[in-house]
Amino acid sequence: MCRWLAYYGKPIRMDKVLFQGPDSLINQSLHSYLGAEPTNGDGFGIGWYSADGTPGVFRSTEPAWNDRNLREISSHVESHLFIAHVRATTGTPVQQTNCHPFHYSNWLWAHNGLIGDWLTVKRDLVLQVSPDLYPLIEGTTDSEVLFYLALTLGLEQDPPGAVERAIGLVEEIGNRHGVQYPFQGTIATTNGEKLWAFRYSSEGKSRSLYFSTAYDTLKAMYPDDPRLADYDEESRLVVSEPLGNVVGVWNPVPEASWGVVQPGQDELSTFRPAAPVSA
Amino acid sequence: MCRWLAYYGKPIRMDKVLFQGPDSLINQSLHSYLGAEPTNGDGFGIGWYSADGTPGVFRSTEPAWNDRNLREISSHVESHLFIAHVRATTGTPVQQTNCHPFHYSNWLWAHNGLIGDWLTVKRDLVLQVSPDLYPLIEGTTDSEVLFYLALTLGLEQDPPGAVERAIGLVEEIGNRHGVQYPFQGTIATTNGEKLWAFRYSSEGKSRSLYFSTAYDTLKAMYPDDPRLADYDEESRLVVSEPLGNVVGVWNPVPEASWGVVQPGQDELSTFRPAAPVSA
Amino acid sequence: MCRWLAYYGKPIRMDKVLFQGPDSLINQSLHSYLGAEPTNGDGFGIGWYSADGTPGVFRSTEPAWNDRNLREISSHVESHLFIAHVRATTGTPVQQTNCHPFHYSNWLWAHNGLIGDWLTVKRDLVLQVSPDLYPLIEGTTDSEVLFYLALTLGLEQDPPGAVERAIGLVEEIGNRHGVQYPFQGTIATTNGEKLWAFRYSSEGKSRSLYFSTAYDTLKAMYPDDPRLADYDEESRLVVSEPLGNVVGVWNPVPEASWGVVQPGQDELSTFRPAAPVSA
Amino acid sequence: MCRWLAYYGKPIRMDKVLFQGPDSLINQSLHSYLGAEPTNGDGFGIGWYSADGTPGVFRSTEPAWNDRNLREISSHVESHLFIAHVRATTGTPVQQTNCHPFHYSNWLWAHNGLIGDWLTVKRDLVLQVSPDLYPLIEGTTDSEVLFYLALTLGLEQDPPGAVERAIGLVEEIGNRHGVQYPFQGTIATTNGEKLWAFRYSSEGKSRSLYFSTAYDTLKAMYPDDPRLADYDEESRLVVSEPLGNVVGVWNPVPEASWGVVQPGQDELSTFRPAAPVSA
Repeated sequence: MCRWLAYYGKPIRMDKVLFQGPDSLINQSLHSYLGAEPTNGDGFGIGWYSADGTPGVFRSTEPAWNDRNLREISSHVESHLFIAHVRATTGTPVQQTNCHPFHYSNWLWAHNGLIGDWLTVKRDLVLQVSPDLYPLIEGTTDSEVLFYLALTLGLEQDPPGAVERAIGLVEEIGNRHGVQYPFQGTIATTNGEKLWAFRYSSEGKSRSLYFSTAYDTLKAMYPDDPRLADYDEESRLVVSEPLGNVVGVWNPVPEASWGVVQPGQDELSTFRPAAPVSA
Repeated sequence: MCRWLAYYGKPIRMDKVLFQGPDSLINQSLHSYLGAEPTNGDGFGIGWYSADGTPGVFRSTEPAWNDRNLREISSHVESHLFIAHVRATTGTPVQQTNCHPFHYSNWLWAHNGLIGDWLTVKRDLVLQVSPDLYPLIEGTTDSEVLFYLALTLGLEQDPPGAVERAIGLVEEIGNRHGVQYPFQGTIATTNGEKLWAFRYSSEGKSRSLYFSTAYDTLKAMYPDDPRLADYDEESRLVVSEPLGNVVGVWNPVPEASWGVVQPGQDELSTFRPAAPVSA
Repeated sequence: MCRWLAYYGKPIRMDKVLFQGPDSLINQSLHSYLGAEPTNGDGFGIGWYSADGTPGVFRSTEPAWNDRNLREISSHVESHLFIAHVRATTGTPVQQTNCHPFHYSNWLWAHNGLIGDWLTVKRDLVLQVSPDLYPLIEGTTDSEVLFYLALTLGLEQDPPGAVERAIGLVEEIGNRHGVQYPFQGTIATTNGEKLWAFRYSSEGKSRSLYFSTAYDTLKAMYPDDPRLADYDEESRLVVSEPLGNVVGVWNPVPEASWGVVQPGQDELSTFRPAAPVSA
Repeated sequence: MCRWLAYYGKPIRMDKVLFQGPDSLINQSLHSYLGAEPTNGDGFGIGWYSADGTPGVFRSTEPAWNDRNLREISSHVESHLFIAHVRATTGTPVQQTNCHPFHYSNWLWAHNGLIGDWLTVKRDLVLQVSPDLYPLIEGTTDSEVLFYLALTLGLEQDPPGAVERAIGLVEEIGNRHGVQYPFQGTIATTNGEKLWAFRYSSEGKSRSLYFSTAYDTLKAMYPDDPRLADYDEESRLVVSEPLGNVVGVWNPVPEASWGVVQPGQDELSTFRPAAPVSA
């Protein structure tokens, strides 16, 4: 049910991250190892920040593995911050407006997982989106509505808190409808300056999520690896599953956690859903 | 802003209606004469009934004029009742789920026109859709929401009344938001047994709509025209604009009217929007 | 590298063959068991004959598993003879003109496999296509050129002989270029009256191919299976891999064979490539 | 039958050129004024050079006017040299491999017009393409074959001479087949350092082509126009038709001419087709 990748750090040509390695994200579109489904062929998307700070988004309904435009664009665009996503639909139509990352103002959002029993709870959740934001919903996925719920609940001011409130709301409304496990998944979101990642599920068995080891440690471990020349101390990757099996590179994000990648020290913290009182 | 065509009558290979004549519907996708926009290249769709009574729907985001599948399918499928539509978007995305005709149970629905200031009134209108039907909305157009409003308000029992109530509701909610002309357009809908067509606009200047002259009259006027062999007494076409300029074939539907094509005598009547009291 | 299915017999709604069973052809597009690649997501096509004898073809670059139009069309069209194909490209672009089945006059053609070292031998092979037929080649695959070679070499008069000559020519030109195994694959072709299937490879390890057991035998084995009501004595399926694991239903086509499904007794024979003398 | 635009000069965000003005190239995809057809909705493409000198190409079968990815990408990528093209097919399929610009090594190529009676002369022309280059032809258009003929005949060493030989060859082979007007059109090609443009037709009535007035002249004429800030002395646009009607900005390329845009002084010269002796 989808795989994603987020990069933050030294500006890099995007294909160097997307296509490199036998388990690259693009190869995961054809056969992933840790996903709920091996094939993620129901569209893809990539959102990246230019030097000027606004994100561009390229989304397509083709499988990522055979999309030539993705290869062309990613091999001619450098970015210091980008999110890529390959989709396996859980039922909603395969169309560009349902492809991740979703975009609002300077924010991007990608999700792997699902809101349980989506069509049952959809109306009640959509009603909780601020009427100002409501007209901007263009697709029909659970993931996009979750983004607009988080925006409604303060994503721009307090990202971890807003996502905790949004998922708390999803759980409350799901419970009200008798949904056993209202939320499942991992999330990447960014405002172009910091990158937040989340791993959580109502069931306590969340989709996999990994982050790359700090550059300095990698450099000490593999001083001669030429690939490290493309990265620096600020570089960090967060991925649904490891892009290769080099020892020491990939670290699992703990169950029920959130982290932030940012200038200086990154952080990791516990995730606790918290439905807003008003809901 | 879209052109459509509806056929009812003797079973006919669909391409004979869709592609025939210099002003065929498919040519109207490239350059229509009476439309709000000359080009209707933002996707298309066709819905047809098989002998067994359920409709099939083929929709695509390609322009109709260069779609080979449309040509192939329409030249190999016969139907006694079908609706075809070529789209010029008024802003919502070009995707299959926004292409007409829309489909629910044994009903099809196509629309040319718009709900005024759609993004302003969308939320209030969507809230009026029955919660049971709400999860079935797959796209993001005004036209599809209007279909679900009509279904909510009794389309299956009383089509003309339900459309009058749905458009009455659109006008009431539009007025509440200060929209000058809340509704504009023509509609085709069918349950597989009868075909209803509507022409109305809040402004009193509705999109064009025409119906074909009765077969017997045409046969008397053009006794030797070989094209008439494909049709019979029950055959009737309703179209956004004439498919050709043969004298006596096309008759405008009067402003603010609805009609029904059915076994035996067809009917034409006045259309009066009527907001439901509860709204 | 592709999976296909061919049906001949009692007219049947196509979805009953395409979508039925856990190993249906459409499911094979997502995960086949016997294919060179598990995923066949690089487009698909279906060609079917109407009662009037000419084939219609619907092809798309989307993966078959998520194409709604395929589901709609196949569930509303009955046919007595059709070929469906799900594609895994061996390198040529994913575009409609590279999707099978290919169509010429009243003939259809589908192929699973490849011409070895295609880009090396392509020019020499294309030069062997009759100049009259050459302009009709619309795509860039080995499979389509093989079809036009077979047409050049007499497909319409003597299908097995023409395919033997075409593949003989492929082997001769391949050998001239030092290609170890010039041909690999299975082929389905039909003129709307009979259906021919081929299994051959220069290596002697051909892609899998199966045919269904005669109706009368199946009826004796499974007298109460309601699915048999859709078929009759003339019904036969030829498939890249079994559509299910019901005992006794599927029989492998022997290595280096061709068969013909036709009114009355079907036939199976040995396949011997034979390069035309002039080549 | 297509419109194109080529930009050379100060690096600029591509959307500033593609989308600006009421007669922008993207608007020309919906309604051009000087084209053989008003609508150019059969796909589009853009090829641009990064600072590192290799071109990226983004092509799509959607009409340019409603393609969101084109808007996103062009508004996030800066380039000093790019070619954009909107297509109106003259019969060959609408597929990415038939969209311009075509790409070989560091070269791009776009064409508006046609080779007369294409399917009649296609085989003879394709045979003239170098066997080394032949396997790289991916589409089925006259325009792409013309590109490979020019490459065969020395495009990389002597662009004007190679195009004169290629079109001379097209005329010779066309004449041999009794084609009245074998070539029609305008061409843009570039190696990433210089930009060549051609205007020629066998009939002597070539498709329109314009170049922008030198920056210094424009600056003197319109000292206060803020748009000029995006350009400098090296900036030059070559376009199928003017992007607006500001007096003094657009100059027609004379019939039967070629020009080159390059560092320092640009040049304009007479175009004389010259079939290679060997043909």
